[in-house]
Amino acid sequence: METLTSAGHSLYFESNLDALKTLLESNKYSKVFVLADEHTSEICLPLFQSLLDDFSEFDLIETSAGEENKNIDFCIGIWKTLLDFEADRKSLMINLGGGVITDMGGFIASTYKRGIDFINVPTTLLSQVDASVGGKTGIDIDNVKNMVGTFTLPQMVFIETAFLKTLPERELLSGFAEMIKHGLIYDKPYYEKLKASNYLIPAAEDIYRSVEIKNEVVTIDPHEKNLRKILNFGHTIGHAVEGYSLANDENPLTHGEAIAIGFICEAALSIKNSTLTKEELNDISGYILSLYPKYHIKKESFDTLFELMQSDKKNEDGNILFSLLEKTGKCTFNCRVSTANILSSLDYYNSL
Amino acid sequence: METLTSAGHSLYFESNLDALKTLLESNKYSKVFVLADEHTSEICLPLFQSLLDDFSEFDLIETSAGEENKNIDFCIGIWKTLLDFEADRKSLMINLGGGVITDMGGFIASTYKRGIDFINVPTTLLSQVDASVGGKTGIDIDNVKNMVGTFTLPQMVFIETAFLKTLPERELLSGFAEMIKHGLIYDKPYYEKLKASNYLIPAAEDIYRSVEIKNEVVTIDPHEKNLRKILNFGHTIGHAVEGYSLANDENPLTHGEAIAIGFICEAALSIKNSTLTKEELNDISGYILSLYPKYHIKKESFDTLFELMQSDKKNEDGNILFSLLEKTGKCTFNCRVSTANILSSLDYYNSL
Ligand SMILES: NC(=O)c1ccc[n+]([C@@H]2O[C@H](COP(=O)([O-])OP(=O)(O)OC[C@H]3O[C@@H](n4cnc5c(N)ncnc54)[C@H](O)[C@@H]3O)[C@@H](O)[C@H]2O)c1
Ligand SMILES: NC(=O)c1ccc[n+]([C@@H]2O[C@H](COP(=O)([O-])OP(=O)(O)OC[C@H]3O[C@@H](n4cnc5c(N)ncnc54)[C@H](O)[C@@H]3O)[C@@H](O)[C@H]2O)c1
Ligand SMILES: [Zn+2]
Ligand SMILES: [Zn+2]
Repeated sequence: METLTSAGHSLYFESNLDALKTLLESNKYSKVFVLADEHTSEICLPLFQSLLDDFSEFDLIETSAGEENKNIDFCIGIWKTLLDFEADRKSLMINLGGGVITDMGGFIASTYKRGIDFINVPTTLLSQVDASVGGKTGIDIDNVKNMVGTFTLPQMVFIETAFLKTLPERELLSGFAEMIKHGLIYDKPYYEKLKASNYLIPAAEDIYRSVEIKNEVVTIDPHEKNLRKILNFGHTIGHAVEGYSLANDENPLTHGEAIAIGFICEAALSIKNSTLTKEELNDISGYILSLYPKYHIKKESFDTLFELMQSDKKNEDGNILFSLLEKTGKCTFNCRVSTANILSSLDYYNSL
Repeated sequence: METLTSAGHSLYFESNLDALKTLLESNKYSKVFVLADEHTSEICLPLFQSLLDDFSEFDLIETSAGEENKNIDFCIGIWKTLLDFEADRKSLMINLGGGVITDMGGFIASTYKRGIDFINVPTTLLSQVDASVGGKTGIDIDNVKNMVGTFTLPQMVFIETAFLKTLPERELLSGFAEMIKHGLIYDKPYYEKLKASNYLIPAAEDIYRSVEIKNEVVTIDPHEKNLRKILNFGHTIGHAVEGYSLANDENPLTHGEAIAIGFICEAALSIKNSTLTKEELNDISGYILSLYPKYHIKKESFDTLFELMQSDKKNEDGNILFSLLEKTGKCTFNCRVSTANILSSLDYYNSL
């Protein structure tokens, strides 16, 4: 596979392992730290080390797994650990894990002593096709997602599909939703290809295509002033549903499950507020429901969902802004939508 | 006075008040927040508002005054306040205060929702000639100074010398040390001019010259890879003495008093490890001691001071690196110095 170059860093696929080795052997760094969570330190670190000829010249920093640990307390602990381990400005941090680790590790590295280099080694499908690409770092505060963070590009993103072999099915499906999104907003043939594929064994070339799409979009608009907003397709409603489910359901939706619901609702909005056709909506709804479990969006949650959408950080001047499909494979952004239409898109989902 | 333009922002002096007014009236911002400490909200805010024709379209966020409050707990509180007040990505933060406010406010703004615009309105001499210029933001963790921060340029720096009228003498003297530093490292005639001036009434044109020097240096090297290090002259030993004094003295040294000691010690190092002459050292020591109270560096503190220097964030690979004077008005950086020379420079100071 090729190497994609974006505004300041490179995205490396398996065959570019050599570039990673060279960087680590260059003696450019005074110290190397690997940040992993309790799972990835056990499951992924051995593979990572073996790929790098039993690489062992690093200090391991291990955190607890899960979104609830992507918080400021863990950051403070890790900043202090870096200091205790005498990390200086020439130190390197390698974030080995899912999006929680790459988001939080990126934030920690981009602010420790005003910024040290970091490399992302994403080990979940979601982080390979989404979280580790594009320079967004962040942590949650009081359960408000990514309330604090920076835009900082990693030195390198190393994507190795072998990590995915140990990933639970539900996690694979969660990441796969972002791949579907890339097709829906940017590349209809890719969307059709995914429809014919098996999400349980994501093909390296599909992961590559997703990374390529995301990279293309964020390189054009790194700070989400315009085009990058199309990556939020499905996420305005999806995030609200995800937040509600997290607070209320015993077995909450994954991010992918939630944005899959968002795809359907926002595709429904797209036929009212953009140019998507009813046939395209039916196709999308049908495909999504063939993959993702049907969820019931409770009537009594509608007000809360609406409030959650209003507090979405992508809004400006209090208006809820949507990214909507013009057609399968093309997305527009900054669309204002009436409250009635938003609520009826939730009804539409429930009616399926 | 003129407007200095650097890599991405402008530094405005009094006469450019109009530019600030225009920015605030442009309706570019959804909300404006003023961050001030308990003193500046009382002493400086009224003047700031009156300069801006009784500007009142903002929410005030007030913090406690003092370095001990430049910490992560205050950041968390202010991030949450911003969220409660519905600050979005198009909000503006105005940091009105000394270096504590501009450093912490800059860090908060540069990370809230991955970064919102901010303006620095420095109200101490130190923050006018140093802290508010150059894009370094930061907070302390466990009393480790600026352990966490970012490099982010404010949208604008508005410098108004009228704020200085209420500043205590000791604070004026503290900021004046940075001005002396600018002369010592970059501009001998300016140093001579300062020697003939009255620090109690700092001239706007001298403040302007200091800002110009700092701005020139940081524009060449924003991320302190090389030239910017000359701004650390006096600070390697100065920071150690400052930290020691803070932990041990009843009435601790100010930053300026501490780096003034650093100037003398590092000038002494400069005659051994660089090309400064004995006559120049005598001149510097004499001038500094005519302004700043003599301090006694206790013999039993030498070990602690040395450890503090070793943990300085400017070091690489465990080596203590100094910025030393080649002559009055010219500084070099990345100088290694023997432990013996460091210790004898402390003895030299004590012997004066
Ligand atoms: N920065 C961005 O642009 C961006 C984009 C999308 C999502 N995100 C963030 O990503 C996070 C979600 O990422 P995620 O879904 O990867 O979650 P995650 O990091 O919590 O990983 C999910 C679980 O899988 C485990 N795991 C990781 N790799 C594994 C492997 N190879 N085998 C077995 N188990 C493994 C983890 O330990 C964890 O328990 C969220 O915090 C979200 O905000 C960021
Ligand atoms: N970012 C940088 O490049 C940089 C450079 C140098 C220093 N700094 C930082 O600056 C901080 C020190 O700044 P400082 O000396 O301005 O301290 P400060 O902000 O604590 O101000 C000193 C005191 O003066 C008060 N004050 C402020 N303006 C006043 C006025 N006009 N009249 C009366 N009182 C006033 C404040 O309330 C405070 O009590 C340190 O945290 C240091 O790390 C940063
Ligand atoms: Zn997503
Ligand atoms: Zn200083």
